[in-house]
Amino acid sequence: MTVAVVGASMTKFGQRDAWVTGIMNALAGDIGVMPAYTERVDQTSSSGGAGIFEAWQSVASGASETTLLVGAEKMTHRSTAETTDVIASITHPEEYKHGVTLPSFAGLTARHYLERFDAPRDSLAKVAVKNHRNGVDNPHAQFQKEIDVETALESPIVADPLRLYDFCPITDGSAGIVFTTEERAQEITDDYAVVSGIAGATDTQVVHERDDPTVMGGVVESGARAYERAGIGPDDLDVAELHDMFTILEFLQMEGLDIADQGEAWQLVEEGYTEMDGELPVNTSGGLKSKGHPLGASGVAQGYEIYKQLVDEAGPRQVDAETGLACNVGGFGNCVITTIMEAR
Amino acid sequence: MTVAVVGASMTKFGQRDAWVTGIMNALAGDIGVMPAYTERVDQTSSSGGAGIFEAWQSVASGASETTLLVGAEKMTHRSTAETTDVIASITHPEEYKHGVTLPSFAGLTARHYLERFDAPRDSLAKVAVKNHRNGVDNPHAQFQKEIDVETALESPIVADPLRLYDFCPITDGSAGIVFTTEERAQEITDDYAVVSGIAGATDTQVVHERDDPTVMGGVVESGARAYERAGIGPDDLDVAELHDMFTILEFLQMEGLDIADQGEAWQLVEEGYTEMDGELPVNTSGGLKSKGHPLGASGVAQGYEIYKQLVDEAGPRQVDAETGLACNVGGFGNCVITTIMEAR
Repeated sequence: MTVAVVGASMTKFGQRDAWVTGIMNALAGDIGVMPAYTERVDQTSSSGGAGIFEAWQSVASGASETTLLVGAEKMTHRSTAETTDVIASITHPEEYKHGVTLPSFAGLTARHYLERFDAPRDSLAKVAVKNHRNGVDNPHAQFQKEIDVETALESPIVADPLRLYDFCPITDGSAGIVFTTEERAQEITDDYAVVSGIAGATDTQVVHERDDPTVMGGVVESGARAYERAGIGPDDLDVAELHDMFTILEFLQMEGLDIADQGEAWQLVEEGYTEMDGELPVNTSGGLKSKGHPLGASGVAQGYEIYKQLVDEAGPRQVDAETGLACNVGGFGNCVITTIMEAR
Repeated sequence: MTVAVVGASMTKFGQRDAWVTGIMNALAGDIGVMPAYTERVDQTSSSGGAGIFEAWQSVASGASETTLLVGAEKMTHRSTAETTDVIASITHPEEYKHGVTLPSFAGLTARHYLERFDAPRDSLAKVAVKNHRNGVDNPHAQFQKEIDVETALESPIVADPLRLYDFCPITDGSAGIVFTTEERAQEITDDYAVVSGIAGATDTQVVHERDDPTVMGGVVESGARAYERAGIGPDDLDVAELHDMFTILEFLQMEGLDIADQGEAWQLVEEGYTEMDGELPVNTSGGLKSKGHPLGASGVAQGYEIYKQLVDEAGPRQVDAETGLACNVGGFGNCVITTIMEAR
C-alpha cells in the first residue's frame, strides 16, 4: 500500500508561553476523532522521524486509512543547564558518568574530522551561515537572522573547536503531518507526495565503541535501506533536510547518505553544492540550526519541509524538487530514521 | 502480508529484586541485533497490546521481516500507596482532582451493573475464584493459590461492592513475543500462529462523559474491527484472555466483545461457560487477577498465553483451541487493543 502525505502544518518555533498537557486519548476526543486509535512515540531527538515511520507503517499495513502525526516539545521553561542535563542523559550511563555530553561528543568528532580530512574550520561555520540564511525565508523559524562566518567563528566556545553558532538552540514548537493511502489522496487532492522509502536503524549507544567516529552507522544503514525501498540513489535527490543539531553532523550525514564521499562533504559545502541554488539544497527550512530544535517536533518539521517543497508550497524558499529526503537523528546517532518522499 | 507468531517467553510474575534500566538502543546492542531499528511503546496498562499492534504493523507493512516485542514493568519497589497514586494519574485531571481513582470507578461501575442487571454479588467473586484456580496451573503466575467464594466475599472492602479479591495485584514481570512473516515462519517451524485480526480504539478519558457506564466503547470498537479483519465472530473463539484488572471488567469485556449480550455475562459465568472445560475458557493463564499485572508486560503476556494455547504448549492448562482472542485495556477503557490469533 503506497502511503501519501496530504497535509502538514507547524507552529512558529521559538519561545512559547502557552502549553497544554494531556494524553493522546484525550487529544482524540478534543479534536473529535474518537474512537480513532492513538499512540505516543518517544525516541528523544528522533521522535518525529520515528513518528513518521510509525504513521507510515500504520497506513502501509492497513491498520489505518488516515493517520495524523503530531510532534511537540516545550523546552524553554527550563534553564539551559537543566535542559542540557536532561539531554545529556541520553548518553550511555558509562559515558555520562565521565561527564560526556552530546556537545562534547560533537566537539571531539569535529576536531577529529577537521584534522583527519584536512578540512578548514571555516567549512563548519559555513554550514551555520547557510542554514541561518535559509531560515530568513522561513516564517516558522526561531531565528530569521543572517549571520556571517566571522560572527560564527568569534562566538563563545562550547566544545572546542565548536562554538555557540555550531549548535542549535533550545526551542518550543509543534508540527503535524497527515498520512493516508494514495487511493484516498487522489480522491481529495491533486497535489500530494508519497513516502517512497523509509527505514530506521540503530548504532551503539556507547559512542566510543564505534569503529570510526566520523561514520554514523545508523545514518548509513537507514539511508541505504530507504534508497533501496524507493529505488533511487543520492543523485536523484532534489532537496534534503539533515539533522544539523551540531554543524559537524551535516557533514557526517551527507557522507553517511552517500551525498558526498567520506571526508569530502566539507568541500561540497565550500563549493556551494548545498546552497539554495546549488546542486542539492540542504536544510532549505533553515535546519535545526536556525529553525530551532524542539526535540519531539523536529523530525516532523523536517517532513513538513520536504512535503511543502514537493507540493510547491514552500514560498520564498521554494526549490525545484520532485524527490526529497529527511534524516532525523536520535542521541548522537543511536537511532536514525531516513525518509524519502516523492511528488505526485 | 500475513503476520505470524513463532515464539514467546515470559518470566515468573511476582516480586523481583533484580532489574535493569536502559534504552531500547542499548538493548539492541546487548542482544546482538544491531543495527535493527528499535522503538519504545508506552500506553499505560495497554502498552503490551499496543506493542503487539505495532509489531504487527511493522511486519505487515514490510518495514521489518522479524520483530521482537518485549514488555516489562517493575512495580513492587514502591509502596502500594505510591503505585496506586501513579496509576490514578491515568484518570482525567478533572476527575482525578475529585479524588476518583481507577478502583473507585470500578466500584461505581460494579454497583451499577449488579443493580441494573439484577446480578448477584457472588457472580463477581466467581470470576476471581475461576481465575485463581486457572493460575494454579500456570508456573509463571504470581499467585498459584486457589480461593473460594467465601474468601473473596469476606476480604477487605476496597471500593464497595468490590473487595480485595476483585482486584489484581501489584507485580514485577516481563514477557516477549517474536513476530515474523508467515513465509518466514514456514521456513523455521511447523507450529506457529498468525495474527488474523487486530485493532485498537479509544473511548473518552473522562469516564463520566460516557453514555452507558456498562459499555466499554473501546472494547466494542476494537473488537468489532478485529473480528471483521479476521473474518470471524465471537462464536468462533476457542479461548480468550480478558483484561480482568477488576473482576467487573471481565463481564464488561465479554459483553463488549459480543461473547455475551449486555447484562448477561454474569449468567454465563454462573453457568460455567468461561471455565477451563466450558464453551469458551476465559483467562486460562489465571488472568491479571492471579497471574499478576505488571502494566507494560500484561498485554504481551496475554499474547503469550493465546500463542501457547494455539501451538499446544500450554501444559496442564491446555485447552482445545484453534482461534484465540486477547483484549488489553488501558486506563479505565480509554484505549483498548483486541488481538485475534489463529493456529496454523
